Amino acid sequence: MDVSEFRRRGKEAVDAIADYYESMADAAPLPTVEPGYLYKLVPREAPEEPEPFDDIIKDMETKIMPGVTHWQSGNFFGWYPCNSSFPGILGEMYSAMFNVVGFSWLSCPAATELETVVMDWLGRLLGLDSRFLSIKEDGTEGRGGGVIQGSASEAHVVAIIAAREMALARLRAQGVRDADQMGAKMVAYFSDQTHSSGEKAAAIVGCKTRAVASDSAFRLTKEALAAAVEEDRRAGLIPFFVCGTFGTTNTAAIDDLPGIADVAGAEQLWFHVDAAYAGAALACPEFRPLARGVERADSFNFNAHKWMLTNFDCSAMWVADSTHMVNALSIHREYLPRTKGSTTFTKDYRDWQVPLGRRFRALKLWFVLRTYGAAGIRAHIRRHVEWAKWLEAQLLADGRFEMVTPVVFGLAVFRIRPAALPAPTEDAANRANAELARRINADRRVFLLGTKLRGMDVLRPAIGSSHGTKANVELLLAVILEFASAVVADCARGE
Amino acid sequence: MDVSEFRRRGKEAVDAIADYYESMADAAPLPTVEPGYLYKLVPREAPEEPEPFDDIIKDMETKIMPGVTHWQSGNFFGWYPCNSSFPGILGEMYSAMFNVVGFSWLSCPAATELETVVMDWLGRLLGLDSRFLSIKEDGTEGRGGGVIQGSASEAHVVAIIAAREMALARLRAQGVRDADQMGAKMVAYFSDQTHSSGEKAAAIVGCKTRAVASDSAFRLTKEALAAAVEEDRRAGLIPFFVCGTFGTTNTAAIDDLPGIADVAGAEQLWFHVDAAYAGAALACPEFRPLARGVERADSFNFNAHKWMLTNFDCSAMWVADSTHMVNALSIHREYLPRTKGSTTFTKDYRDWQVPLGRRFRALKLWFVLRTYGAAGIRAHIRRHVEWAKWLEAQLLADGRFEMVTPVVFGLAVFRIRPAALPAPTEDAANRANAELARRINADRRVFLLGTKLRGMDVLRPAIGSSHGTKANVELLLAVILEFASAVVADCARGE
Repeated sequence: MDVSEFRRRGKEAVDAIADYYESMADAAPLPTVEPGYLYKLVPREAPEEPEPFDDIIKDMETKIMPGVTHWQSGNFFGWYPCNSSFPGILGEMYSAMFNVVGFSWLSCPAATELETVVMDWLGRLLGLDSRFLSIKEDGTEGRGGGVIQGSASEAHVVAIIAAREMALARLRAQGVRDADQMGAKMVAYFSDQTHSSGEKAAAIVGCKTRAVASDSAFRLTKEALAAAVEEDRRAGLIPFFVCGTFGTTNTAAIDDLPGIADVAGAEQLWFHVDAAYAGAALACPEFRPLARGVERADSFNFNAHKWMLTNFDCSAMWVADSTHMVNALSIHREYLPRTKGSTTFTKDYRDWQVPLGRRFRALKLWFVLRTYGAAGIRAHIRRHVEWAKWLEAQLLADGRFEMVTPVVFGLAVFRIRPAALPAPTEDAANRANAELARRINADRRVFLLGTKLRGMDVLRPAIGSSHGTKANVELLLAVILEFASAVVADCARGE
Repeated sequence: MDVSEFRRRGKEAVDAIADYYESMADAAPLPTVEPGYLYKLVPREAPEEPEPFDDIIKDMETKIMPGVTHWQSGNFFGWYPCNSSFPGILGEMYSAMFNVVGFSWLSCPAATELETVVMDWLGRLLGLDSRFLSIKEDGTEGRGGGVIQGSASEAHVVAIIAAREMALARLRAQGVRDADQMGAKMVAYFSDQTHSSGEKAAAIVGCKTRAVASDSAFRLTKEALAAAVEEDRRAGLIPFFVCGTFGTTNTAAIDDLPGIADVAGAEQLWFHVDAAYAGAALACPEFRPLARGVERADSFNFNAHKWMLTNFDCSAMWVADSTHMVNALSIHREYLPRTKGSTTFTKDYRDWQVPLGRRFRALKLWFVLRTYGAAGIRAHIRRHVEWAKWLEAQLLADGRFEMVTPVVFGLAVFRIRPAALPAPTEDAANRANAELARRINADRRVFLLGTKLRGMDVLRPAIGSSHGTKANVELLLAVILEFASAVVADCARGE
């Protein structure tokens, strides 16, 4: 493909993308294909000779498109949102143009420095403590700063590695022999509601984990954490890391972050805050009181690709002190020369992450922050919170539903109340709610997740599409009500 | 930005990308900015109100562009190439359009299945053993298969984790008590030439590493590996993993892969082959005899984003048996439902990698394989090998240079011979070659890396740009000869 064909194909692609988004307002979110569908439609090997691009585009329309889950549909309420936006897509385009591997300052100064700059912008937008900024208000450079990871999972791995390094450094300083053998005794603390990426990160790093029981509101509390740590200390284990969540996956619960900070301080644990979903809400000052305690964390992470209009992947992570992280992840090689000078600007971001190579992801975040402005981003967040609260009010007004947790952000966790069923038992409610989720998704107009909370079947639509409107949430409500009536009627008939 | 503005901005972006590539044939690869340049040019925080997109594009031209290292310049010979291509960029565009998080089959069946399909295509294109394919020639499904990682570093982490799981499973089966405490006794083997990502992966996982001394041709040998393993066994350690490299970073050396496979088989080590750079050459059958032994590996990885025209990131990894990897990386949650059916097609790729989320990277690989065809990819590889061999011939014909290792792929590792200097010592040669690299890069017409090999300063231009021509290599040679003359003359003057 020569450059003139690229000009043509690229513009066709732009129109195809625009057309796609024009169809996304009310697209059916889930595909109907069966596992293995694609294998039957395509050859066993790559073609020997070049194929016309028209054939590829035709195959994309007829073979790929039918198997796509449309995360960008206004009727997609599954998991958490994965926002795309036009400036985000443009950022990806320019990033693909440069196609740099920005592992060090020299490998692309603009990529390194723009990341440092926009992560400070983003930190200020969220009201993060200045400990997390690269350049403080008075212009001084600190030990903290931000980095764009690919995912919250990677942020989790990096935080645990930094925590282990910090703990091992302390053990060595205390003269503990064989400190490096202590890995198997080290314990990372989560709650039973922490995202799977925490447990997975601990499995990767090879430390012990303890899932502390959350309270009735699905929150990790100071008391439960302190008791678990004390018990493990008595058993000869080495507590070293705790994750507090600001907006859990199941219910968007907020852990007792100030209490966790107290325990982490007293016990010298690395305190990581996973705000993958709800962190975006901190752009709005009214949500910041909920995040008290974050200012005492060692690391904080949220996904700008979830609810802040920046195409996947863009997981924003800050550390208050990068020393241990860089010590743990820095490997010197002659072929990876370092640039001398201010450590703030010549940092080698490869020492802030698992991989060596990294894409120029700061570009899309810069595009998004400037195209929307802080005001636009706050409006984006507030709109979805308003719609989620509206949905909550409608469900409660109906009388047949109960909220499992109150709506705080864009997630509504609810179920049909047992009392609304002919046989008002928990078992009957579970069967009815699992069936409600199944029917809603089988209908295909909207998609949401049913999940289990302590044995209780619930539904958890997440509102936050960058392309949806309130009409989509109205449809969601209509579909819920329609199938709830059918499910309750079937229960009455004993089905 | 509404959809009509996106149509306009997107097409402007396509033209900007096309213009950029028209300028890349002979662009100066390295920027001239000083550390901290960008901070002086931009505001301290994100704007409150939206900014016109024209302002952003203007800033990109005036503030970002001057700080970009142009990896796509035909005159970029640093590190290893990072190929972009027009189909690769188009693939990124469509991937940004879908913006799916393809962690499981349900989260985007097309993304999962296309990845399985194109990784089989790519495996066949490289002539990989059928152990590594998802669907064998006879249509049966095996335990192996391919996955697109973000980087070779991540492939390294995944391979080591799978290896640890395999070793722990064996220890448990042998009735070893506290098998899970054995992590600190486990040893991963590399050579002193293995890429830093190996050591970094081991540091992340928290196992011991041993860098076995390579031979005079910078190769890890069977004998050296066997001796190291035996010594460690006697010391009570647990050897569990070995990495063999097909094309090292320093010299593109090829380890004794059959010998390593012998040791790995006898000692029950997981055998990972890192072919990050040179693996692309296996598309050409004439290179396959060099890769004997790969058919006995447990995992194999190469970066299609290095030398196979696929935009960064696209690191292709295959495992012969995914069981241990999936056991180690799979974490169940209710909100991550699995799809029943054929494990080949409903696989959850999240269990094949460190992160949970993943971009739709198979799309660009599919675009590239079809747009170029196998023939086009082979021509791409052979062209660069031919130019590198031409460069080698010219350098040798000059008489002042020696190749540190013979050219096999696109990498030429050479230095000014000590005998070509007035004072023919190794020290003098080191000073002269370091100075040669410094002057070539300061001149800015081309960029290459100088590196140190066992205390010897050498230069290692890597030829493999998707946008360069032989004229760029001719310029590289002219610049080398020009500055070599100047450096030798200065040596003669005692400077």
